[in-house]
Amino acid sequence: MSFATPIRRLDARQPDFLATLDALLAFESEADERIDSAVTEILRAVRSTGDAAVMEYTRRFDHVEAKSMVELELPKAELQAALDSLTVEQREALRIAADRVRIYHERQRAESWDYVEADGSRLGQKVTPLDRVGLYVPGGRASYPSSVLMNAIPAKVAGVEELIMVVPTPRGEKNPLVLAAAAITGVDRVFTIGGAQAVAALAYGTQTIPQVDKIVGPGNAFVAEAKRRVFGTVGIDMVAGPSEVLIISDGSGHADWVAMDLFAQAEHDELAQSILLCTDAGFLDAVHAAIDRLLPTMPRRETIARSLANRGALIHVGSLEQACAIANRIAPEHLELSMEDAERWIDAIRHAGAIFVGHWAVEALGDYCAGPNHVLPTMRSARFSSPLGVYDFQKRTSIVQISEAGAQHLGKIASVLAHGEGLQAHARSAEMRLKV
Amino acid sequence: MSFATPIRRLDARQPDFLATLDALLAFESEADERIDSAVTEILRAVRSTGDAAVMEYTRRFDHVEAKSMVELELPKAELQAALDSLTVEQREALRIAADRVRIYHERQRAESWDYVEADGSRLGQKVTPLDRVGLYVPGGRASYPSSVLMNAIPAKVAGVEELIMVVPTPRGEKNPLVLAAAAITGVDRVFTIGGAQAVAALAYGTQTIPQVDKIVGPGNAFVAEAKRRVFGTVGIDMVAGPSEVLIISDGSGHADWVAMDLFAQAEHDELAQSILLCTDAGFLDAVHAAIDRLLPTMPRRETIARSLANRGALIHVGSLEQACAIANRIAPEHLELSMEDAERWIDAIRHAGAIFVGHWAVEALGDYCAGPNHVLPTMRSARFSSPLGVYDFQKRTSIVQISEAGAQHLGKIASVLAHGEGLQAHARSAEMRLKV
Repeated sequence: MSFATPIRRLDARQPDFLATLDALLAFESEADERIDSAVTEILRAVRSTGDAAVMEYTRRFDHVEAKSMVELELPKAELQAALDSLTVEQREALRIAADRVRIYHERQRAESWDYVEADGSRLGQKVTPLDRVGLYVPGGRASYPSSVLMNAIPAKVAGVEELIMVVPTPRGEKNPLVLAAAAITGVDRVFTIGGAQAVAALAYGTQTIPQVDKIVGPGNAFVAEAKRRVFGTVGIDMVAGPSEVLIISDGSGHADWVAMDLFAQAEHDELAQSILLCTDAGFLDAVHAAIDRLLPTMPRRETIARSLANRGALIHVGSLEQACAIANRIAPEHLELSMEDAERWIDAIRHAGAIFVGHWAVEALGDYCAGPNHVLPTMRSARFSSPLGVYDFQKRTSIVQISEAGAQHLGKIASVLAHGEGLQAHARSAEMRLKV
Repeated sequence: MSFATPIRRLDARQPDFLATLDALLAFESEADERIDSAVTEILRAVRSTGDAAVMEYTRRFDHVEAKSMVELELPKAELQAALDSLTVEQREALRIAADRVRIYHERQRAESWDYVEADGSRLGQKVTPLDRVGLYVPGGRASYPSSVLMNAIPAKVAGVEELIMVVPTPRGEKNPLVLAAAAITGVDRVFTIGGAQAVAALAYGTQTIPQVDKIVGPGNAFVAEAKRRVFGTVGIDMVAGPSEVLIISDGSGHADWVAMDLFAQAEHDELAQSILLCTDAGFLDAVHAAIDRLLPTMPRRETIARSLANRGALIHVGSLEQACAIANRIAPEHLELSMEDAERWIDAIRHAGAIFVGHWAVEALGDYCAGPNHVLPTMRSARFSSPLGVYDFQKRTSIVQISEAGAQHLGKIASVLAHGEGLQAHARSAEMRLKV
């Protein structure tokens, strides 16, 4: 058979397969000196002059003039008006999605705990929300209301008191769905600023914009670099790489569904990665044929085609065990188990951001409304990190309450170990509490 | 009264106090181009030639010659021999400390969870340990066995299968307490390498050293910079700033104890920060007098004196409420509530790495053996981050298992939202599952 759409066809049973796979997965975001120096300058300016610098960059980059920062804050009534302006269908979809995401995330809330020892000492951990969080929302093409839901809801479930959203409005253009999502999720303040200047304003605070404790949300290369730089002054979420899906198929189900699931990843941008692992050569051909047939019908076909050609692959595997081993090597952001007996393979997957189990569990449901977060670890980082969650907006403080009797017992141990480390003041501070 | 030891005396009721405090807290680790370029070179070399580069840098920086990497791995028998070589008192102190730290951290282990909806869909989160973790332990003066306990135990409690420790042995010098701590905590492999080359070996893997998923543990400026650079390829823990203690006193208790607690922080290094807030002017004088009297008796008096003079302060506050407000502004790594009725003030503290409650709860107990971790957020980052814990060695994977009925209900919502975002392939992948 021959196919029209260029996409790699690989066989996992070939000896050079792993090297080929690693080359396919390799992605390094290039350091860009132009971005580096622009971000350095913007951070410095906002830090030193605050509002004035933010307004100047907003004028220059977004072509939005403001005489004072007050003009760049959206009143809550405008958010509510955006929500009211939606169709009933859109408003209900946003509401149901928000409710489901909230219900799921409520399971993630950690509680404080402690225990009391026989001598009366009490040890524990106090769990509290962050005070104030900044949420970056991109303007333009990648301005997604679902991103507002997925970032704002876990923060609010954690109990964050003040959630400040920034969203650029280039040439004044606002996205009513994004503002509606802010209204639904209870975002407290919204400023129409973006880029590195918005990150700087949130990280350092200005005369008008309060300093936050953590900044979350996706952005372009300038935003990503600015977040990387202010990390330490504030917390940040992960700096995301290109989005990825890995589908494992046993040849059951519909080739069209699998093709469209690959497209759904590929349509994000040309660096997005869509890979199919399948034990059935005939089904791989059927998927390739479905790609050929469906691609011309897609509005974003050019992006999809480039993504599939550059970063995609249809891979024939020897067994589902081999497929799982490959999945663990990739540690994909999204993993679809598109097979008959999908549930029993969950335990074989050690590394993935999210596992979509069975033919009905298409990634798009998770992207919008199933409940779990759509902010997931990319580029193999599912090996060591987790989906965005309530835990990202809570912090812990150790509680060390020691009784007089406890200080006797523990003081002797601390003294021995401190002397062993040559830290005599540590030792003596414990020894002073000993009753001789 | 006049005092011999230079340390700032401040009054929180003065109008310029907050500006003075902020200046005292300000600390920026300077970018150092020499370190930057050395680390770049080392990472590149280890990534491209692996073992050979690691051996070459180990020869050059640690003056340790090895013909093969095998010579730079310590056999487990040597760790056990180090443990056996300790005095009974030291061995027992290490054992009891390790047990207490383990018991505390077992409370932190998160478990997988899920819930099934009425239509049979199942949503949840699978919690699993990281596969393999690297533990950096500094050589030389700051080589602390307690640091091995505090980093290794939470990893092992999380269920990490392979824990690889690296510790440089400059000119072949080994610290038996550190090796004993490795034996007690069940560290799986130990390599006698350090610096940026050890971080690179763990992050990228070499012919001999397996690639890890996360690197934890303190190190010098080269190690910190190397960790910052490999972040993304692997996870890292926080890059720690200078250590800090804030003591809040109501004037009760012993001035000598408070003075020694300040010393215990200051003896770490001259950048360490020791601050006392007290409502009682007379007690502040008594502490200053105790500092004068006790300082000459301390082996590390020069470091302590420099730290107190440059970064320390004795501050008179108007009330305990004001003291708590200042504590929340500082968000200290360690906070001692050195007062009569300490427990009732815990809730007033929103931001701190660890709170030591009452006169008996001296920080040194927490540093070694109370149970909580001594790796704590520094430099105000307690506003958004947490003590090192089991949660740092676990990761989460979302489970999205959708029934046929669930796909009907959720598919319509996803379709509406996806069309609203202009992502038609997302919409169609959901719509294809709808039974018309």
